[in-house]
Amino acid sequence: MNNDIIARRAVTVADVARAAQVSKATAARALGGYGSVSAAVTQRVLETARRLDYRPNELARTMATGRSGTIGVIIGDIENPFFGLAVRGISDLAAEAGFDVILSNSSETLAAEQSATRVFLTKRVDGLIVAPATMHDGAHLKDALAQGCPLVLLDRDVPGLPVDVAFIDDQAAAREATDLLLASGHRRLAYITATSASDTRYYGSEQIALTTVQNRIAGFLEAATAAGLTESERQIRLGASTTTRSQAILLELLRQPDRPTAVLSSDSKIALEVFRAARALGLRVPQDLSLITFDDADWTSAVSPTVTVVSQPSYQLGHTAARMLIDRISGDTVAPRRCVLETALINRESVSVWPALHVKNRL
Amino acid sequence: MNNDIIARRAVTVADVARAAQVSKATAARALGGYGSVSAAVTQRVLETARRLDYRPNELARTMATGRSGTIGVIIGDIENPFFGLAVRGISDLAAEAGFDVILSNSSETLAAEQSATRVFLTKRVDGLIVAPATMHDGAHLKDALAQGCPLVLLDRDVPGLPVDVAFIDDQAAAREATDLLLASGHRRLAYITATSASDTRYYGSEQIALTTVQNRIAGFLEAATAAGLTESERQIRLGASTTTRSQAILLELLRQPDRPTAVLSSDSKIALEVFRAARALGLRVPQDLSLITFDDADWTSAVSPTVTVVSQPSYQLGHTAARMLIDRISGDTVAPRRCVLETALINRESVSVWPALHVKNRL
Repeated sequence: MNNDIIARRAVTVADVARAAQVSKATAARALGGYGSVSAAVTQRVLETARRLDYRPNELARTMATGRSGTIGVIIGDIENPFFGLAVRGISDLAAEAGFDVILSNSSETLAAEQSATRVFLTKRVDGLIVAPATMHDGAHLKDALAQGCPLVLLDRDVPGLPVDVAFIDDQAAAREATDLLLASGHRRLAYITATSASDTRYYGSEQIALTTVQNRIAGFLEAATAAGLTESERQIRLGASTTTRSQAILLELLRQPDRPTAVLSSDSKIALEVFRAARALGLRVPQDLSLITFDDADWTSAVSPTVTVVSQPSYQLGHTAARMLIDRISGDTVAPRRCVLETALINRESVSVWPALHVKNRL
Repeated sequence: MNNDIIARRAVTVADVARAAQVSKATAARALGGYGSVSAAVTQRVLETARRLDYRPNELARTMATGRSGTIGVIIGDIENPFFGLAVRGISDLAAEAGFDVILSNSSETLAAEQSATRVFLTKRVDGLIVAPATMHDGAHLKDALAQGCPLVLLDRDVPGLPVDVAFIDDQAAAREATDLLLASGHRRLAYITATSASDTRYYGSEQIALTTVQNRIAGFLEAATAAGLTESERQIRLGASTTTRSQAILLELLRQPDRPTAVLSSDSKIALEVFRAARALGLRVPQDLSLITFDDADWTSAVSPTVTVVSQPSYQLGHTAARMLIDRISGDTVAPRRCVLETALINRESVSVWPALHVKNRL
């Protein structure tokens, strides 16, 4: 099928230089992303390289630039669509810049993330993008920095770590979503997250290992408090990380005498479980239960009713993280940057005015 | 949070040996997976290692065994839930056996797969699991084998490549699903796949680069022919790889004067687009359009109607591929194995009897 391409002599930097009408040294600089080349020339060289299907020779590149041309990415959960889209954003930018991407899935555990960091350092990646499984232990990430490996955090921060971060304003996004539920008349609101903790009940932010979740809960509580609600902490649930756990949490939550009438879900996997659990309990969305979730996952606009979401710029987060990392790999030494990208509340059909008529208040 | 673990002295092979009450040499053999150790002792040593949170020293292990303890996995599409679950299966088995997993996403392109193979060989992985983007070019995979890197194919075969394969019987699975549609009275059936081709129309199996898709189409056509249908090839569509392309294909297909009354979808991403397109056209599932899809993705049982699926053992496919690879890494030299795992047709609500009453036959 592609034998014609394979059989062809490999395209060299000299070929690219000739076709782009620049010197070989200029082409090498543009392709390697080092030294001084104008943006226009860089663009011309990269386009020519793409057109000719130029593939850098790994060994030659490592010798010329001291780099292997590889970025290591550690994601939290390969089964969460948020990360699938973020990885596409990383990979697209990396490919443009001539870097290969290798991935590791931490399953949101610190041990796996530490192991992956060690593996990537052993494999001599040029830089790391990490969605850290916990904000409470960054020793392995500090080690990577100490070894000279550039690092960018994706989605989550590790306070005290002097690195670039690409994330959203989780607190403002959660506050905006909660405000929509409050404006619709809801007074008993639940917040559900997959983040692990020793208990499914919430006692305070020190239980939480992810800055995203801490900030979302802060936004949820801030909105609730501003609306005069005083016991909203009691309706926060942690550890909805598997179908079984999510279902147990939801059944417990929705079978309370004063059950929540609206749920804010921390990711789209949980929202799908809310959807199922509501059906299993005979609760209609949105008449009996309103729902908003973080992440505009594909299915949220295919189910009936469609689900109101906080859309995160997942692709752009990945793209931005990769951009910052490649800047660092190229020698950029500006102070750590904190890139906050915009979210959008997409109002669909899963939020209804409360109290509704003919509603199931108790189960 | 985990500072107590971090601060502890690293657990050594000697510690594991002492706790498991075996000699250090025996513990090293069991942990390294080499030499002769009984199954019972191996199990005791591995359990002890797990309990003590033993982490092998990378350098020491490479020196002792010639291995780096890393498996490279190249998946087709990180955004397809099939691969998310397969990677979990691979990772669980690999972790048990003391291997780290690093991933690469080919986006179903040969060039990216070739690049990833080269990167993984440069990074000296101990073995490769690949879901090949095409059956027509295995030169890079043959190279890997020639360099002594064990290889297992996941989900798809490359004819002529003498390696282990973990897959399903795609032809039988597609035939069974098609038979269900035929038994419900449908006579105009469509098959839609994401696999790329120069045209969205189907002219013959030589257009198709994936054995899975070739075999599924063969099963689809076999069932249709056995039922006396003669023009089913005309209702096969290729290249539904993005939302935009899927929608264009579906609109064209469903706006035909003799539109299909049932669709068999090659993966769950396409099925979601069928669901959306049907709604956009005002077609009700299943009254106006029946649907079966490969892959029991989460959302298929949450939408209304729930979707009838061919459930693939994705997790088990990954697990089996990893098992075979680690056998090979450990020196297993039996002839290449072809592991065919069972699928299950899960009959839900998206298939209706045809012709139905009050149906939209034309748009």
